[in-house]
Amino acid sequence: MKAVQLGKYHAAPELVHVADPEINSPLDVIVRIGGAGVCRTDLHIIEGQWADKSNVDLPYTIGHENAGWVQAVGSAVTNVAVGDAVILHPLVTCGLCRACRFGDDVHCVNSSFPGIDTDGGYAEYLKTTARSAIRLDDSLQPADVAALADAGLTAYHAVAKAARVLRPGDKALVIGAGGLGHIGVQVLRALSSAEMIVVDRNADALALAEQLGADHTVLADGDQIEAVRELTGGSGAEAVIDFVGEGGAIEDGVASLRRNGSYYVIGYGGALHVPTIDIISTEINFIGNLVGSYNDLAELMVLAAQGKVTLHTSTYALSDFAKALDDLDRGEVRGRAILVP
Amino acid sequence: MKAVQLGKYHAAPELVHVADPEINSPLDVIVRIGGAGVCRTDLHIIEGQWADKSNVDLPYTIGHENAGWVQAVGSAVTNVAVGDAVILHPLVTCGLCRACRFGDDVHCVNSSFPGIDTDGGYAEYLKTTARSAIRLDDSLQPADVAALADAGLTAYHAVAKAARVLRPGDKALVIGAGGLGHIGVQVLRALSSAEMIVVDRNADALALAEQLGADHTVLADGDQIEAVRELTGGSGAEAVIDFVGEGGAIEDGVASLRRNGSYYVIGYGGALHVPTIDIISTEINFIGNLVGSYNDLAELMVLAAQGKVTLHTSTYALSDFAKALDDLDRGEVRGRAILVP
Amino acid sequence: MKAVQLGKYHAAPELVHVADPEINSPLDVIVRIGGAGVCRTDLHIIEGQWADKSNVDLPYTIGHENAGWVQAVGSAVTNVAVGDAVILHPLVTCGLCRACRFGDDVHCVNSSFPGIDTDGGYAEYLKTTARSAIRLDDSLQPADVAALADAGLTAYHAVAKAARVLRPGDKALVIGAGGLGHIGVQVLRALSSAEMIVVDRNADALALAEQLGADHTVLADGDQIEAVRELTGGSGAEAVIDFVGEGGAIEDGVASLRRNGSYYVIGYGGALHVPTIDIISTEINFIGNLVGSYNDLAELMVLAAQGKVTLHTSTYALSDFAKALDDLDRGEVRGRAILVP
Amino acid sequence: MKAVQLGKYHAAPELVHVADPEINSPLDVIVRIGGAGVCRTDLHIIEGQWADKSNVDLPYTIGHENAGWVQAVGSAVTNVAVGDAVILHPLVTCGLCRACRFGDDVHCVNSSFPGIDTDGGYAEYLKTTARSAIRLDDSLQPADVAALADAGLTAYHAVAKAARVLRPGDKALVIGAGGLGHIGVQVLRALSSAEMIVVDRNADALALAEQLGADHTVLADGDQIEAVRELTGGSGAEAVIDFVGEGGAIEDGVASLRRNGSYYVIGYGGALHVPTIDIISTEINFIGNLVGSYNDLAELMVLAAQGKVTLHTSTYALSDFAKALDDLDRGEVRGRAILVP
Repeated sequence: MKAVQLGKYHAAPELVHVADPEINSPLDVIVRIGGAGVCRTDLHIIEGQWADKSNVDLPYTIGHENAGWVQAVGSAVTNVAVGDAVILHPLVTCGLCRACRFGDDVHCVNSSFPGIDTDGGYAEYLKTTARSAIRLDDSLQPADVAALADAGLTAYHAVAKAARVLRPGDKALVIGAGGLGHIGVQVLRALSSAEMIVVDRNADALALAEQLGADHTVLADGDQIEAVRELTGGSGAEAVIDFVGEGGAIEDGVASLRRNGSYYVIGYGGALHVPTIDIISTEINFIGNLVGSYNDLAELMVLAAQGKVTLHTSTYALSDFAKALDDLDRGEVRGRAILVP
Repeated sequence: MKAVQLGKYHAAPELVHVADPEINSPLDVIVRIGGAGVCRTDLHIIEGQWADKSNVDLPYTIGHENAGWVQAVGSAVTNVAVGDAVILHPLVTCGLCRACRFGDDVHCVNSSFPGIDTDGGYAEYLKTTARSAIRLDDSLQPADVAALADAGLTAYHAVAKAARVLRPGDKALVIGAGGLGHIGVQVLRALSSAEMIVVDRNADALALAEQLGADHTVLADGDQIEAVRELTGGSGAEAVIDFVGEGGAIEDGVASLRRNGSYYVIGYGGALHVPTIDIISTEINFIGNLVGSYNDLAELMVLAAQGKVTLHTSTYALSDFAKALDDLDRGEVRGRAILVP
Repeated sequence: MKAVQLGKYHAAPELVHVADPEINSPLDVIVRIGGAGVCRTDLHIIEGQWADKSNVDLPYTIGHENAGWVQAVGSAVTNVAVGDAVILHPLVTCGLCRACRFGDDVHCVNSSFPGIDTDGGYAEYLKTTARSAIRLDDSLQPADVAALADAGLTAYHAVAKAARVLRPGDKALVIGAGGLGHIGVQVLRALSSAEMIVVDRNADALALAEQLGADHTVLADGDQIEAVRELTGGSGAEAVIDFVGEGGAIEDGVASLRRNGSYYVIGYGGALHVPTIDIISTEINFIGNLVGSYNDLAELMVLAAQGKVTLHTSTYALSDFAKALDDLDRGEVRGRAILVP
Repeated sequence: MKAVQLGKYHAAPELVHVADPEINSPLDVIVRIGGAGVCRTDLHIIEGQWADKSNVDLPYTIGHENAGWVQAVGSAVTNVAVGDAVILHPLVTCGLCRACRFGDDVHCVNSSFPGIDTDGGYAEYLKTTARSAIRLDDSLQPADVAALADAGLTAYHAVAKAARVLRPGDKALVIGAGGLGHIGVQVLRALSSAEMIVVDRNADALALAEQLGADHTVLADGDQIEAVRELTGGSGAEAVIDFVGEGGAIEDGVASLRRNGSYYVIGYGGALHVPTIDIISTEINFIGNLVGSYNDLAELMVLAAQGKVTLHTSTYALSDFAKALDDLDRGEVRGRAILVP
């Protein structure tokens, strides 16, 4: 089959022919790729930033946001069948460790990560297991939802966590309405009646956020803390959902948190720096968020099938992968870039 | 190997020679039985009460409370190794359905139940999968804990659910301190500081309950509702944990429930009959409980290893299975009967 | 002031002149009534059905769903001020007992209930305390929301409880889309993305439910269980929210419950009758619901101010109270009847 | 009456005669002090560190950990009666704001704090309200529990929060077994079966912790991170409960946290400094804790009455207040110093 493989770091990946994957184990599933998201992480991989973390042997096929159709299944697969349209949870998990047995897939102690530490979805076929495959509703096309497999899942997981404790009248401040953030806005609107305030540096992102259900938008022009304070009656927000996690976002977020409020950390890059006296005197919480579970992704697909979460995508042929990566690098992709074999 | 098989209903099972089980799939695990609990359900199976529910083909090997040592494992097993002492979760679950993915094993839509609908543990070896095997702490012996695999797990699951909402000062009424109940008493003592009241018809059972941590015991002699009312300051108990579920137990339990309290149904046989006006005017809840999850059993094994939950057992050689069943039927087993091959 | 008082049971109440209420205690609040809901309970009170329960001394003023404007406040009142538009929580609670200190107002051990056991709102003025008064958003008029004070609050409390555990993809079956039910439909739509199925005997009620956000409606024509089963893929609903609680509703609801599902009891009249084996073998729960807390009502007012919960009302002058009660008795009120002094 | 008042900052308080407090409002409660805890915060107040925060007018009576007997009550007090032994929640709360209505007393927007911003308990009598008074079990003496009113409550609140999510087999790391910490150890032992590891710099504190129920103790001698790692099987603790919050404690705690674990911040002084990548890649949480609610204190009193939480105290006559403060300042108090009028 055709696959885009990275042969060495700091060099362009290449479209090559490799052997088709085969079913070797009863839970194996082979998926004919219908869409593979092109993500900034792919650029970082090529630049070698993940070399030490993933320890993957080169060459290998990149692509970690994948959806398609089931091509073949092992003898013990009961949740999907040949021909089913599916989206793939980013991790292939063991199903046996304590975390897996709680449904807490991302903390599996024995997982692999196609596209990161094993062959991914920039290819015609991908081999995974039944534990990663989620059958799509008939109304959904793999290429339309592929980019929800990782970015969307991360947004869903964090926002759903916040939504479970938000009540009508509570304020939720969303920091960043870009790639993840604009999915988060849609999820929050679907799951909660909290009053949603969205902050971003980009006026277009704010316009989109408003269209997707934000109650208030605030341009991060230097006065954003004051603006949020006013919108929250001087008290701050019960939830701060931070898709940025660097620059001044963290300081803005902490300053905008209400007594007894919770700060959901999703974006990263910067550091949280808070005196313990400030944490206890207002009894605030900082809540980490890492991707999401298989069931989280299944729930996100329900919202997608209901039309409550949508993505703008630009499709590229698999053979145009280099252009897709270039466009992404130059900031010229409208929505999310999707490779379609 | 030797196995005790049921050849036809309403007839005595027989000790026969059958083929040893074999590893056929990467997640298979073969366990050399170290102890198999002899349970009243086994008597019911022989009497044919389960014939329609289980649809099992005769002959087959009974025994659904099993522990032992890992004899062989399939290629994908990572959680236990050959030689490990293990206890077996009663269900063999698929790991792929929505319930399994939430860690809610008992609602797996694709499970089997060794000893009920497939070959069980009245034998030298049992075939199961990695998803059922829990490694035991070095301090625990399979024969000592086997009977916790089903009865103990059921008690743990219900009591742990209650303990999660009980607070110091709350009253918990345990109805029935027999086989399951006396495990429940130990679990409640380990997990909660609630004030525990135990009701039973049997004075010996109450004496044991007191020794195991009950704060108060009440003989069910006809005045038990009044006695419980007095012990709860006239208001009733925040939690009623009913291991009986028939006879007058249900009426006693409902009458002993505090406003906004919860009634945990574990024992069965009778029926719950409550006017809806009584449910809403006091805002009470009835909570069903069915066995427990894999992680529940793992947690129960932690309590067992800490010495917080213990069982009295009487061991019988596998070849003495008929005597064990007879003794059980005549009420002459001290503690739980365990077959040891 | 003018007030509608019940002088004896089984006789028509009369519009009389009584002394204006006065502030006697620092937390007292006197409200000029802007709207008082006319409720079926008022008919029951007149018929003497509540005589034994309330033990109220006749004559007294009925009316237990009240909203208006603050006329006077005691010296310690900090949450509302003279002139504020307010809705009144139906109970006047002590604020000192354990239930009150958990925010669980309806289980206050020392409460009174204006319109039931003390003077209510069929009058120009009502005396309550600061603990019952909730300031309304400027967009809301007392007469428009008065009927949410009790019926709406009850629906909100139960549905919000269900919504906290429902997830996308879960099914919620609402039984009854009448007075409480059609508020419940709106609340469920505001708080949850669960797939909502509404069952009612009345086609008009179903048409309204669909307009208010139900995903599916089912006429209770004898085949409703089968229809619900089909809509839930044969598995039943994760939540059954029963606003009827009598007739065949309970049996329908229990039959429509999914394994591990919860049945929320709100309507009453009939009885729950379920074998304990059915409760444990499917691990189902029955959850009582009683009115709601002060904060529940505050949250419902947020949804009302956001336009997410609306009521149809027919207003009557206070002096036309007899016609309002008659119209209600004959089923000729469109929406809820509201007395406006 | 006699009272110890602070006349100016940086000067010794003096024992003076002031007017007896009087009942002015229906919820007022006057307590004859039976014990007033002498706390390091009192030293800080004298040194002026709280001047800007409390804005209290001098002179005033210090003492914020109080218990005694009810001397007089206002007309609306229903929860305590004259003669009752009581402990006082440190805050006098309004009972009307949203936080109060959720039972979240410490976030009351309209509270006062006797001993900090109004007259406290270094006196013969203290005026408070019914909302602060908790009736003691007959087995408890005010002087024995007074110091639990603030320090003990803070430990209880945080540990109970952790205990609600800890399960058998989980590891809980307690940092600091001093004044608050040794209460936290007792509370954790009463509420949870988690495996408890206690770290402290002081060997005597560790010996006490072991006696009070710690499963493992680790001397903070520089190798504590490695020791904790070993005790947690290399994975870290599900909960870190930090009573220190400064020095290297925070870094130790973060390094000892398991994936998906939670860090409970109680002690303060230092700062939390964590890169957001570390928060998300392991999905860890930081949970603030501030004193505790009225019901928390009531629950702690239950544990005290059950003998599960005890304090070592050294009593001083009220007239010896200066010696008590001096002893505390010089580190010569054994256990907690209590003034007894």
